[in-house]
Amino acid sequence: MNILFIMFDQLRFDYLSCSGHPHLETPHIDRLAAQGVRFTQAYVQSPICGAARMSCYTGRYASSHGAQWNGSPLRVGEWTMGDHLRQAGMACWLIGKTHMNADVEGMARLGLAPDSVIGARQAECGFDVWIRDDGLWAEGPDGFYDTKRSPYNAYLKSKGYAGTNPWHDFANAGLDGVDMASGWFMANAGKPANIAEDDSETPWLTSRTIDFIEQASAPWCAHVSYIKPHWPYIVPAPYHDMYGPEHVLPAVKDPRERVDPHPVYGAFMGNAIGQAFSREEVRAAAIPAYMGLIKQCDDQMGRLFAYLEDTGRMQDTMIVITSDHGDYLGDHWLGEKDLFHDPSVKVPMIICDPRPEADGTRGTTVDALVENIDLLPTFVEAAGGTVADHILEGRSLTPWLHGQKPQTWREYAISEYDYSATPMAVKLGIAPRDARLFMVADGRWKFMHAEGGLPPMLFDLEQDPQEFNDLGRSPDHQAIRDRMYDRLGQWGRRMSQRVTRSDAQIEAGRGASRRKGILLGLYEESDTDPELAAKYVGPAPR
Amino acid sequence: MNILFIMFDQLRFDYLSCSGHPHLETPHIDRLAAQGVRFTQAYVQSPICGAARMSCYTGRYASSHGAQWNGSPLRVGEWTMGDHLRQAGMACWLIGKTHMNADVEGMARLGLAPDSVIGARQAECGFDVWIRDDGLWAEGPDGFYDTKRSPYNAYLKSKGYAGTNPWHDFANAGLDGVDMASGWFMANAGKPANIAEDDSETPWLTSRTIDFIEQASAPWCAHVSYIKPHWPYIVPAPYHDMYGPEHVLPAVKDPRERVDPHPVYGAFMGNAIGQAFSREEVRAAAIPAYMGLIKQCDDQMGRLFAYLEDTGRMQDTMIVITSDHGDYLGDHWLGEKDLFHDPSVKVPMIICDPRPEADGTRGTTVDALVENIDLLPTFVEAAGGTVADHILEGRSLTPWLHGQKPQTWREYAISEYDYSATPMAVKLGIAPRDARLFMVADGRWKFMHAEGGLPPMLFDLEQDPQEFNDLGRSPDHQAIRDRMYDRLGQWGRRMSQRVTRSDAQIEAGRGASRRKGILLGLYEESDTDPELAAKYVGPAPR
Repeated sequence: MNILFIMFDQLRFDYLSCSGHPHLETPHIDRLAAQGVRFTQAYVQSPICGAARMSCYTGRYASSHGAQWNGSPLRVGEWTMGDHLRQAGMACWLIGKTHMNADVEGMARLGLAPDSVIGARQAECGFDVWIRDDGLWAEGPDGFYDTKRSPYNAYLKSKGYAGTNPWHDFANAGLDGVDMASGWFMANAGKPANIAEDDSETPWLTSRTIDFIEQASAPWCAHVSYIKPHWPYIVPAPYHDMYGPEHVLPAVKDPRERVDPHPVYGAFMGNAIGQAFSREEVRAAAIPAYMGLIKQCDDQMGRLFAYLEDTGRMQDTMIVITSDHGDYLGDHWLGEKDLFHDPSVKVPMIICDPRPEADGTRGTTVDALVENIDLLPTFVEAAGGTVADHILEGRSLTPWLHGQKPQTWREYAISEYDYSATPMAVKLGIAPRDARLFMVADGRWKFMHAEGGLPPMLFDLEQDPQEFNDLGRSPDHQAIRDRMYDRLGQWGRRMSQRVTRSDAQIEAGRGASRRKGILLGLYEESDTDPELAAKYVGPAPR
Repeated sequence: MNILFIMFDQLRFDYLSCSGHPHLETPHIDRLAAQGVRFTQAYVQSPICGAARMSCYTGRYASSHGAQWNGSPLRVGEWTMGDHLRQAGMACWLIGKTHMNADVEGMARLGLAPDSVIGARQAECGFDVWIRDDGLWAEGPDGFYDTKRSPYNAYLKSKGYAGTNPWHDFANAGLDGVDMASGWFMANAGKPANIAEDDSETPWLTSRTIDFIEQASAPWCAHVSYIKPHWPYIVPAPYHDMYGPEHVLPAVKDPRERVDPHPVYGAFMGNAIGQAFSREEVRAAAIPAYMGLIKQCDDQMGRLFAYLEDTGRMQDTMIVITSDHGDYLGDHWLGEKDLFHDPSVKVPMIICDPRPEADGTRGTTVDALVENIDLLPTFVEAAGGTVADHILEGRSLTPWLHGQKPQTWREYAISEYDYSATPMAVKLGIAPRDARLFMVADGRWKFMHAEGGLPPMLFDLEQDPQEFNDLGRSPDHQAIRDRMYDRLGQWGRRMSQRVTRSDAQIEAGRGASRRKGILLGLYEESDTDPELAAKYVGPAPR
């Protein structure tokens, strides 16, 4: 069996027709859901690209691997998806984005050459690279945001697109007469990107994926990682005008949210992004483009799935669709991601397992609390390996896929957010190490702890599914908050760093030191088995 | 300035005359205390050799570095004392014991050759090795406990001591007629070890230390790490009969402790070691030998300090004396270490800083809560370096040494103990990952949390300084336990793995992405500074 692990970027859990969007039709993704299992409560371990992905690729919480922000290097030596899968006999390839930054200093300290196989894998989050393109070729007065080579820009140039950065100038900009109408300005979101649809980012990456599968030796895992529907919000024809303001759902927001908000929430509402997405004209411009981008993604899924069917790969490939986080799109007076309301922290997660054991669950949904870090152990099992549960903190989803309800399952999901790199930390006067948030969600209650002496947040998802009424300071909810703090405490004490020794090794090692002569608590020779003490008795050497 | 970082093994905090032992005179160590600062509340981060040392050598809690048991390999890439000090321009040498096990698998995975400089340092906890000898050359039916080469055994053989393991047969055994009287049997503890005193372990390591200093280029840090007064409890003449049963203090124990004890405590009381040390004949045999070993250590300190004075090194060397944990010696019905009563978890800590800034504190004591992980940041400052506080979890003790009371100091000390490798975990039916204990001590209260659904322990050190009355289940102390759980929760959320990026780097990076073209929340071109958007405006390329 192979694994096609597809990740979109910034795709909301509820912007698919299978998850209930009333206007956006995503028949191809829906078909995958109909052939597999859709998890309705899937949480990312951090609502920001870099940290969410590092959790996904390591199978570990953000506090465990430590790469808690975009660009924060993943410590050299951390076990990754590639390490675990290769150990199980499965190759692990990257096609697209990881947002991973190599721990260059750590590698130099250990003498790892970046151009060695080991060094290259360490620098690429454990993947072998088919295509690495993070899809953010932004450029400003201090140069490019991403200083690597862009395979996508190279492709566009080879096709004759002019200029130094056709990613921006064509794929992410429309035209205003003879001028660029950049997708960075949301007023331009309704214009078609100035590019042939075939050449835009999502079809391009799909083509590269097909190229890969054409030549791949099984078994393989391919992490197909699209930048879209992530901003800039602009999409080529015909997707640019498939949706209009009439398809924009009302913002899920309430005036109560702005009254004495939690300080961190208040700071995010007050930033430029929150303020922009609180304007209806911004939503009316951006959301139809966002929907168009998703529609294009779905069409590309149709193309990819057709290819898999034609080549017989549908029968021997596990297909996974998820995202690294969502997008507020103006809900809760916010844009982007960052905090823990459902539009941000919840993601789509669909797994289609071709094995006959999964036949009984096809087309079903699972409401259990699922974390993004559960994917890697699921993949290890699919590859026939043993889950290294002294390293991996997620739990395999295989039982759910195979219709077996696990005897125990997690009672709460965790997500974390480190906002130390943001202006909000400065505005709030919070030190870098205190600019951290922790979510504990148990299905009924969603709780957020903020370091730095700030109060918590709490939502009753049963009474208040839209998360408007913050009970973090409600005198009536102390017992709930205490329970959530107990859980956070339990999670904080988890065994996360004992990565050099498995439980099985510990169990096998018990008593070994006695048989190697460490004899404790003996008063006389007769207190022990003569075999154990044989080296300690008899004539003294002379 | 150099640093002479002396660690004894299993030396109780209260077995020195400067800390109040009524019969054991340790004038040389006392003199160091009179010239420096003695910390009266110094806690190790785990009351077992391996984990305590890995915490000391990394400056990090056991849960942070993950090497929580003897022999559990320290993950490749963990920053160690050697890494931090070399970065500050100071060499860092090992003379003696570390109990460190290399992460051989991790090194192989990263392609680190064990015989390269980098590989050798990774395999030796970051030290450059002058002498590595862990001092536990036990041998049983399955071979040697320690499979490395023993420099000490090689020395003894070079001096003509016979047999394959003179460490045991001479240094750790007396004579019973022509037969060995092994120190592993405590009934033999009163006999003199069958070795010239000069050739026994403590003088031998002192000689190696002097050899080192003779040729060392300043600035250096030398970790002089003695195995003694660790068991086997046997010592050469004249130390074997300096103390007798009349010098053995009554065991600090109380019948109440055996009534419905905490399950983990009960299991440890029930093991062979606890049962042996509950017998007065065992204490009467072992403790005088233990005291003799300490007396020999003190005499060797006298020899070493005299050498330093003669060579002028006393003026430019910071001298530190501590231990990796204590020894119950029958207190609380226990032997060895392992749990969190003071005889086990508290250690001596004396620091003599030769700088004039320390002149005002010479001969004083400090009662602040100090952790063993505080030493490394203290050393980094002494070496003139900057403390990497995104990696190091301890706090520099320099202010205390220089008579400056820090504005804030820790309110509680933490220690951890992972007993998953022991028969007690089996006896209690506790899974390996749940066989973990956490201590929180704030000076007034000492609290222990046990994973696996077990109750906590709690002692009121003011009312019950001897720690007899476990209030872990007392209905009257719920508020105290809640407070201790809050602290443990706070500690559990600490930033411990963000080791690839410092606070300063985070602060310096704020806003950088905007100047590299990531422009969020913009509706129109006029919403931003033209400089930031320059690449996004103007004529479209053709």
